[in-house]
Amino acid sequence: MQSNRPFILIVNDDGVFAPGLKFLSTTLKQIADILVIAPEKEQSGKSHAISVDQKIKLKKLKVSDGYAEYSCSGTPADCVKIAMHELVQKKPDLCVSGINHGANFSISTLYSGTVHAAIEGTIQGIPSIAISHQNYSKDIDFSHFKKFIINIANYILNTGLKNGVTLNINIPDAPFLEIKGIKLCNQGNGNWEEEYEKKEQDYYWLTGNFVSFDQSKNSDIWAINNNYITIVPIKLDMTDYNCLKDLKDLDINV
Amino acid sequence: MQSNRPFILIVNDDGVFAPGLKFLSTTLKQIADILVIAPEKEQSGKSHAISVDQKIKLKKLKVSDGYAEYSCSGTPADCVKIAMHELVQKKPDLCVSGINHGANFSISTLYSGTVHAAIEGTIQGIPSIAISHQNYSKDIDFSHFKKFIINIANYILNTGLKNGVTLNINIPDAPFLEIKGIKLCNQGNGNWEEEYEKKEQDYYWLTGNFVSFDQSKNSDIWAINNNYITIVPIKLDMTDYNCLKDLKDLDINV
Repeated sequence: MQSNRPFILIVNDDGVFAPGLKFLSTTLKQIADILVIAPEKEQSGKSHAISVDQKIKLKKLKVSDGYAEYSCSGTPADCVKIAMHELVQKKPDLCVSGINHGANFSISTLYSGTVHAAIEGTIQGIPSIAISHQNYSKDIDFSHFKKFIINIANYILNTGLKNGVTLNINIPDAPFLEIKGIKLCNQGNGNWEEEYEKKEQDYYWLTGNFVSFDQSKNSDIWAINNNYITIVPIKLDMTDYNCLKDLKDLDINV
Repeated sequence: MQSNRPFILIVNDDGVFAPGLKFLSTTLKQIADILVIAPEKEQSGKSHAISVDQKIKLKKLKVSDGYAEYSCSGTPADCVKIAMHELVQKKPDLCVSGINHGANFSISTLYSGTVHAAIEGTIQGIPSIAISHQNYSKDIDFSHFKKFIINIANYILNTGLKNGVTLNINIPDAPFLEIKGIKLCNQGNGNWEEEYEKKEQDYYWLTGNFVSFDQSKNSDIWAINNNYITIVPIKLDMTDYNCLKDLKDLDINV
């Protein structure tokens, strides 16, 4: 992969055989050389987990001119790290994570392996975006979004992204003609009302429903529920600077 | 546990038999009723991973007046979720995660299971803090920090914490008498220079050294390296609001 085309790293958390990953790589290879690296098994909800004190396995699946595909036994963030250290000769111009089968907005931003694979791209100094679709089905037809994906990729390839910023993009589960456009948003204030199902003695399974506490039309919750594609710029620095000011007279002894 | 004492939830990522967890629970049971829930095995680097589509096992280890201890087969964040749903009758007044064997400042905030267990406490509406010690050794003597831990716990029990904020606390690896005090900081700009060791065909192990890109005396990197206990207030909302303004003329078609 020494061509003059852009070089895009593609990753996901649904695993190397997920249709959303396949669609993304097929679409983006029209405009770029592609390296795909994805978990060998589904890794949903893995957030920014990395394999510490654990070996990870890398497996070459396909290599042809301008296209390479690997699986990795680790987490989504591991995929990006090991690609950067073992597989690339030059830094990718863009990292795209997805397309996730299921939305990752509001508080789910923190749990999502898709979003955090893109954040790991940002940590590695690559302009990085995560793309998720609100429909969980593996049979969803992504073909209407080919143009949007090429447009957003080209935009970032041309314009770049601020250091330390990742774009978290969600596509609403609506008929294509009812999608109203793209909306820049903040991460909305919502949560999961969870329950555990106890199917066996001492064993529990997590279930839950998302609830919104946010009325703002600037939030990704409002926007996705009103059929907009949402884009939230998120950052590596988790500091609450307002709270830092409030706490400045903290009076605690060591 | 229906006493009038405060009620503290204690969690970690090093596992239920880690000395840092034991020290924390022994210290805090002087001032509160305690529920300890911790992973049955070490879960370092697990960030905010949760068990999705996977059963988790809960095991009762010890229950006496004002003190209960459980292990959980899931991640640090799973521990907090299942405690809230299956083990508590009333919401804890405080959640403390740690004491982690190893520091969690700068970019490690994102990878840390210790920090994200506390963040899950925050998501559950509990004032929550994470405490890590810069020394990785399991033999470290924490006894000098008994007073600090009781003081910070009492401070938060009395004052509370802003909704959506978690305190990320790190103790420097310095002789106690050389610790200069407590410093409120922002999350510093640093990274891991990583390498993978290939010990077997196709198998890799992550190693790395931390590097700082931050000269600011307000950062947790400067403060811990200058023998301060660092406190960084971190928030659930990852939005970069400055970047949101910069991007507002984003011109991309669907």
